[in-house]
Amino acid sequence: MSLRNALLALLSSGPMTGYDAAKKFASSVGHVWHAANSQIYPELRKMEREGLVDTREVPWGSKGETKTEYTVNEQGRDALHEWQQEPMSYVADRDPARLKAAYLEWGTPQSAASFLREHISHFENQRRLALDEIHRVESGGNPTLVRRLENVPDRDRAKVTAFKRFSYEGRVLHAEAEIAWAKRGLELLAELGEI
Amino acid sequence: MSLRNALLALLSSGPMTGYDAAKKFASSVGHVWHAANSQIYPELRKMEREGLVDTREVPWGSKGETKTEYTVNEQGRDALHEWQQEPMSYVADRDPARLKAAYLEWGTPQSAASFLREHISHFENQRRLALDEIHRVESGGNPTLVRRLENVPDRDRAKVTAFKRFSYEGRVLHAEAEIAWAKRGLELLAELGEI
Repeated sequence: MSLRNALLALLSSGPMTGYDAAKKFASSVGHVWHAANSQIYPELRKMEREGLVDTREVPWGSKGETKTEYTVNEQGRDALHEWQQEPMSYVADRDPARLKAAYLEWGTPQSAASFLREHISHFENQRRLALDEIHRVESGGNPTLVRRLENVPDRDRAKVTAFKRFSYEGRVLHAEAEIAWAKRGLELLAELGEI
Repeated sequence: MSLRNALLALLSSGPMTGYDAAKKFASSVGHVWHAANSQIYPELRKMEREGLVDTREVPWGSKGETKTEYTVNEQGRDALHEWQQEPMSYVADRDPARLKAAYLEWGTPQSAASFLREHISHFENQRRLALDEIHRVESGGNPTLVRRLENVPDRDRAKVTAFKRFSYEGRVLHAEAEIAWAKRGLELLAELGEI
């Protein structure tokens, strides 16, 4: 259901074609819920069949072709409200990095160290991406958010922006925890005389 | 491949039946890689077919029945070594809590606050479980680790224990980052005058 909620949330910024939804996904809600185009199109059609979005054909290109435009309808907005009311269901941990770390004795000191350095570098990159996105959210550099804010009453704009920022702050905190952990791992290898 | 690596890692503590592997999984490697029994048995048989483990029938119960016992062989140990040499492949973020947080405006102030309080409570519990496991690792209270250490040269014991501890420390740091994030969210709701 998360992909459905992600798409409803995206479309709630304003009507868009399936093509636009797929294009905008990666630079907005995709930051917190990754999905491939091959998942997005079928889910949009399913949402239409289940009555969560209305569709109409809109002109596309100069050859008289059309594309389907999706608009969240009242039932779709109800689904968004319900989603926010539902309790979260947390899944059990499946973390390949933690799994690897628990059995570093099966590698060499070099493989252990390079695993940890890669982990740091991966999450330093993730941290940077999340901070960049926070900057875009705050400076009006995210077109999906800009459009969303145009359709939101004045009094709610600060709130809507603050929640996007808050979500990305979670990515920053998570990345920082992973960096701290892997640095601790490198210290441990040194303490053990491995590196 | 992670389930396979998790099972190889578990069996590397000493030979065990499929039944024992399934039973011990949850209280050892399952802390970092959750798997259901319905996944464990077929994977063990696949590992046998692919020559990573040797099997023999061992007596079970008092009625002359037997069970299959699995032992990691040389090819299995090679697979563990290779796994530690391979670079990690990180998957794109799919975090239902971050997704929900980005669109809290679709809920009520009450639903937002209870989502965040639940998040704190979930990760406080996760943190406690990981700390309990660290305590067991250090005090000889994890039978799988105790058995593993019996089969490890003296000079490697501190290292093997330290890596288990290190892995669980990652769970602690992750849980603490999630708690800090959700607390920040509650502060934000208060700042916005929502609660």
